[in-house]
Amino acid sequence: MNRIITIGREFGSGGRELGRRLAEQLQFAYYDQEIISEISRRTSLSEQYVHSIVEHQPVFSFPIHIGRSFHPTANPVFEQTMSIYQEQARIISEMADQSDCVIVGRCADYILKEQKPFRIFVYADMESKIIRCREKAPEDERLTDKELKQKISGMDKKRAQYYEFYTRHSWGDRLNYDLCINTTQTVIKEIVPAIAKLFYSISQ
Amino acid sequence: MNRIITIGREFGSGGRELGRRLAEQLQFAYYDQEIISEISRRTSLSEQYVHSIVEHQPVFSFPIHIGRSFHPTANPVFEQTMSIYQEQARIISEMADQSDCVIVGRCADYILKEQKPFRIFVYADMESKIIRCREKAPEDERLTDKELKQKISGMDKKRAQYYEFYTRHSWGDRLNYDLCINTTQTVIKEIVPAIAKLFYSISQ
Repeated sequence: MNRIITIGREFGSGGRELGRRLAEQLQFAYYDQEIISEISRRTSLSEQYVHSIVEHQPVFSFPIHIGRSFHPTANPVFEQTMSIYQEQARIISEMADQSDCVIVGRCADYILKEQKPFRIFVYADMESKIIRCREKAPEDERLTDKELKQKISGMDKKRAQYYEFYTRHSWGDRLNYDLCINTTQTVIKEIVPAIAKLFYSISQ
Repeated sequence: MNRIITIGREFGSGGRELGRRLAEQLQFAYYDQEIISEISRRTSLSEQYVHSIVEHQPVFSFPIHIGRSFHPTANPVFEQTMSIYQEQARIISEMADQSDCVIVGRCADYILKEQKPFRIFVYADMESKIIRCREKAPEDERLTDKELKQKISGMDKKRAQYYEFYTRHSWGDRLNYDLCINTTQTVIKEIVPAIAKLFYSISQ
């Protein structure tokens, strides 16, 4: 069976960088934006639209009872959102079947639970997340600290809702992960070799 | 400043073993039962009694309002419990001043927060904790799985109450730790070198 690492992460915690560097270190495949591209290719929906569904406009932004009280086809947006999630789950399973891999976000820890992935959650304090977001922001972004804090909190709230809707588990709750790592005041590339070593020592 | 590692841990998670082995690996001092012995020596109370206060019968098993509504001396047990906690805090600070060290439990992460310790929390699923407890139990212990589960849950509940009473923080909440590690189906001694490496890479 292939070895799989999933990364859940707070916005601005450096989780994506950690996943990418960990994949490089272990010489595993790395999947992140590739999942969106593949959904887009298979569904003929634009990448931008798929992205808005799986990250920024999850299904529960519509009243949940719609899908339960009425015939599903009564709400085509709900239907499309659910079918995008199902396509995403199928693609993630296919990727995990192909080779050892690191998958960032997208409920991969839950989708692949039968394969027993090594589940990492990455988080940091707000001050540290603000600093990381500023470093990576486009040059023309002019958000105040307060606006940036709101953006970060909003993103994390959406990720939590998305995760909880599809998995019925609590996003970021340590019980759903094998390792939770606080990246406050941490240089990501410096901790990756130790995390790789920890992964090897646990997955022996 | 000395380097300090604190270990919070669920009962049966192997946290104490992890702390001891990590101290050995790093050649740091290791403090656990030694703290009880020192409190006992300084207060002339028996080790057994001190242990019952700091682990098994925390102050909040008495109605908390007693210490607030009446003159403190009206409740000598409350007074004694608080003075044991203060003595414990003093001893932990002295230990941290002496040398690099690993300290297990006893709100050390909170007591030493100014020294910025590396704060680890160790946890595992219930099945794994039951197996670990059975391996370490006295030969004459004859608890059923149900009884053992109740014992484990009860111990963790008391630890959470104790921690939350003194720190006003939530025990086991990832935000209060730098690393949370799930030891389910893990051999503690095999993961210690990687944790030591992670500690070095973060505390550089």
